[in-house]
Amino acid sequence: MQKNPSHYDRKGRIRMVDVSRKPPTVRRAVASVLVKMTPRTRRALKRNPKGDPLEVARVAGIAAAKRTAELIPLCHPLLLSHIDVRADLCKDGVSIVSTIRSTGPTGVEMEALTAAAVAALTVYDMCKALERGIEITRLRLLEKSGGKSGTYRAPRS
Amino acid sequence: MQKNPSHYDRKGRIRMVDVSRKPPTVRRAVASVLVKMTPRTRRALKRNPKGDPLEVARVAGIAAAKRTAELIPLCHPLLLSHIDVRADLCKDGVSIVSTIRSTGPTGVEMEALTAAAVAALTVYDMCKALERGIEITRLRLLEKSGGKSGTYRAPRS
Amino acid sequence: MQKNPSHYDRKGRIRMVDVSRKPPTVRRAVASVLVKMTPRTRRALKRNPKGDPLEVARVAGIAAAKRTAELIPLCHPLLLSHIDVRADLCKDGVSIVSTIRSTGPTGVEMEALTAAAVAALTVYDMCKALERGIEITRLRLLEKSGGKSGTYRAPRS
Amino acid sequence: MQKNPSHYDRKGRIRMVDVSRKPPTVRRAVASVLVKMTPRTRRALKRNPKGDPLEVARVAGIAAAKRTAELIPLCHPLLLSHIDVRADLCKDGVSIVSTIRSTGPTGVEMEALTAAAVAALTVYDMCKALERGIEITRLRLLEKSGGKSGTYRAPRS
Amino acid sequence: MQKNPSHYDRKGRIRMVDVSRKPPTVRRAVASVLVKMTPRTRRALKRNPKGDPLEVARVAGIAAAKRTAELIPLCHPLLLSHIDVRADLCKDGVSIVSTIRSTGPTGVEMEALTAAAVAALTVYDMCKALERGIEITRLRLLEKSGGKSGTYRAPRS
Amino acid sequence: MQKNPSHYDRKGRIRMVDVSRKPPTVRRAVASVLVKMTPRTRRALKRNPKGDPLEVARVAGIAAAKRTAELIPLCHPLLLSHIDVRADLCKDGVSIVSTIRSTGPTGVEMEALTAAAVAALTVYDMCKALERGIEITRLRLLEKSGGKSGTYRAPRS
Repeated sequence: MQKNPSHYDRKGRIRMVDVSRKPPTVRRAVASVLVKMTPRTRRALKRNPKGDPLEVARVAGIAAAKRTAELIPLCHPLLLSHIDVRADLCKDGVSIVSTIRSTGPTGVEMEALTAAAVAALTVYDMCKALERGIEITRLRLLEKSGGKSGTYRAPRS
Repeated sequence: MQKNPSHYDRKGRIRMVDVSRKPPTVRRAVASVLVKMTPRTRRALKRNPKGDPLEVARVAGIAAAKRTAELIPLCHPLLLSHIDVRADLCKDGVSIVSTIRSTGPTGVEMEALTAAAVAALTVYDMCKALERGIEITRLRLLEKSGGKSGTYRAPRS
Repeated sequence: MQKNPSHYDRKGRIRMVDVSRKPPTVRRAVASVLVKMTPRTRRALKRNPKGDPLEVARVAGIAAAKRTAELIPLCHPLLLSHIDVRADLCKDGVSIVSTIRSTGPTGVEMEALTAAAVAALTVYDMCKALERGIEITRLRLLEKSGGKSGTYRAPRS
Repeated sequence: MQKNPSHYDRKGRIRMVDVSRKPPTVRRAVASVLVKMTPRTRRALKRNPKGDPLEVARVAGIAAAKRTAELIPLCHPLLLSHIDVRADLCKDGVSIVSTIRSTGPTGVEMEALTAAAVAALTVYDMCKALERGIEITRLRLLEKSGGKSGTYRAPRS
Repeated sequence: MQKNPSHYDRKGRIRMVDVSRKPPTVRRAVASVLVKMTPRTRRALKRNPKGDPLEVARVAGIAAAKRTAELIPLCHPLLLSHIDVRADLCKDGVSIVSTIRSTGPTGVEMEALTAAAVAALTVYDMCKALERGIEITRLRLLEKSGGKSGTYRAPRS
Repeated sequence: MQKNPSHYDRKGRIRMVDVSRKPPTVRRAVASVLVKMTPRTRRALKRNPKGDPLEVARVAGIAAAKRTAELIPLCHPLLLSHIDVRADLCKDGVSIVSTIRSTGPTGVEMEALTAAAVAALTVYDMCKALERGIEITRLRLLEKSGGKSGTYRAPRS
């Protein structure tokens, strides 16, 4: 049973996990986040006459997933084969779900979480003049599959 | 009274705000986020024998603040004069607070939020082998000052 | 009368222009480019049911302008105060116009040209499965103002 | 017969193409572009006493090819196995040809076009003090091979 | 017997080596560097009450290894499977050793040297207020293995 | 008399120096490094028939200076007004000198050292097939001026 964070060696020094002996397998991870705003801000976002204002947030999330290994120091660089980011208006604001696929020696959880986080930050950026108090909340992993540790599914919430 | 997200023009097309006529003023923004984990994961993080495992998260947050304009499509590039990221163990997991200072024509809220988000993602990355269900929550602006819109302080929560 | 490319010193070695004694002035540059496609591809691009497919190209152009100094080796890093990229369907395909503003010691022509080029490449990327023979053409500076060399306006074409 | 740009889903939302089931194959793409200048600018470029001034443009193009997925939002990150950029003085200015090779699940057209575009922008940057009206023109794919869609060769022009 | 730097073609033009026909093999490289400082600076570095000040240098080196292909123009992008950077106080200052592993068509010497160099620069940055004359010295490859050219081991020094 | 590295706070936590109250002044820094190689490698480098093979190293150094704040975690982003990198064959190999100028609240030593280091790594990369044992040595600050700490000049060596 593992008891220590895997990114620390026995002496407590930070380390990257060595994946050189792990065979490449098909990996998938899904993450979600909620951008919580007042009904008034949400309505302003919706009223946009031309196209979907959430497209920019989606594009930003896709681009950020590709840069995960630059942002998170101990992440391995990976070749992502698919990045999908959905952003939809929901009762409390904007709900974002990201899905990442890759074939490689390590999982893509961090890529999914990073895509969702940056998409949410982009929504904040577009709405901040309307409401400073917007909250980005419940960023979490919904699902992962592939690799030795197998499949994970978040409990219903 | 402003009713539209400022990043959309009258036709609903995405746009960057033009700050070329805004005089530079001293800006400051503070953001916070909570990385919520089980007591068991929190204990494992604490037990690290050598130095503070949260230093890596802090460094990642500082580095990310400098790259905000690369991640958020409509952010202006800014010269940050100070970036501080604190990460402390708290009752529910890890509490992160970021503070940014800059002298420029636009605010540094996005830089503070980005620093906090990436520091939190780095904590997740270090603990994910222990607990997949860690949640990054309550990412929000605590304070901002400087600029025409003046000072904002988040309500107590 | 200047006779040598300014980026070469007297011995013919590449050099960056030294702008440390140039006072900051307000700079503006406008560039344009045409993405030439068949009427059939142009129609497919137009038919998109949801929002404006050219928004992605616009966002990519805005993001690229901020990274000009990373792409063009001898460009100075600059703080851009405004980036606008417009992309419109025209008779021959998609017409893109970028406008950059900055207050600094050197011009923003390269930023305008880079924004237009990357927006055009993004249009190509979105249409390439429909038509490999799309041509990106007539990328040029339309206007620049500010700085010692004053205002330039491209001749009508 | 495909009728829609492949980067949009059925609802018209932007998407990255999912390549997770595409087997890796050897890919090659060749692109070209012309930097059109007056004979006088062209002569100044040629007169450089020391080495080839176009080497900088070639290096910039090679470096840019590696960053294509950062610039073009929906491009997949790829491991390029070869990047060649040639830049030669021609009758009308500078002619640039880029060739990219990779083994992967998707083509390298965008990498070839990006390399050529950035090499051309670098030539512009080096010559802009001599001639503002330089035009970057006819950026196009000359050839591609590999993958399901097979070989493409541009018609003679 | 090879007589020319491999990055130049027969005409003396810079080129990237074409690795498209090289099979992927397991690669490993180890590099080291010494940051030479006065005993007084070394003592100040040691006295830090909380954790190991060299952790920041280690994190910076790990992050830099992932960006080698962005810094060194003719390097191929590679997927690194392990990056380890050690930084220890030694008699003359700080001794840094980096180890890189990858499975790919070309070696990881440049990644190991870049990681060591950036970790050393980070130590300099943290100590520069104490001593401007710190010297970064003896950056060299200690070992490499994998690939056609086989194993190299630096002579004892 | 300062006794602690300035990048650590009183509790020993890493921190960025706050420069928000420092007035901008003209800054300059000069750094140098030696790439030590055997006479045989040095001759091969010299024999290149077309132009100066060291131009690539110079361009890489210039580009790297602009990215210093991305590589060194606690460096402030700065607008560099001039970057000069010289690379010359010398008795022992290649001698590199970099000079940086900026007007800002903090010095440019790290930018000068980073430019020199990356130029040296690029020379290594171009020659590594000829000689694995090349050593990058004596990377140090030659001079700095501007700012409260005034002028520094390295002792003759």
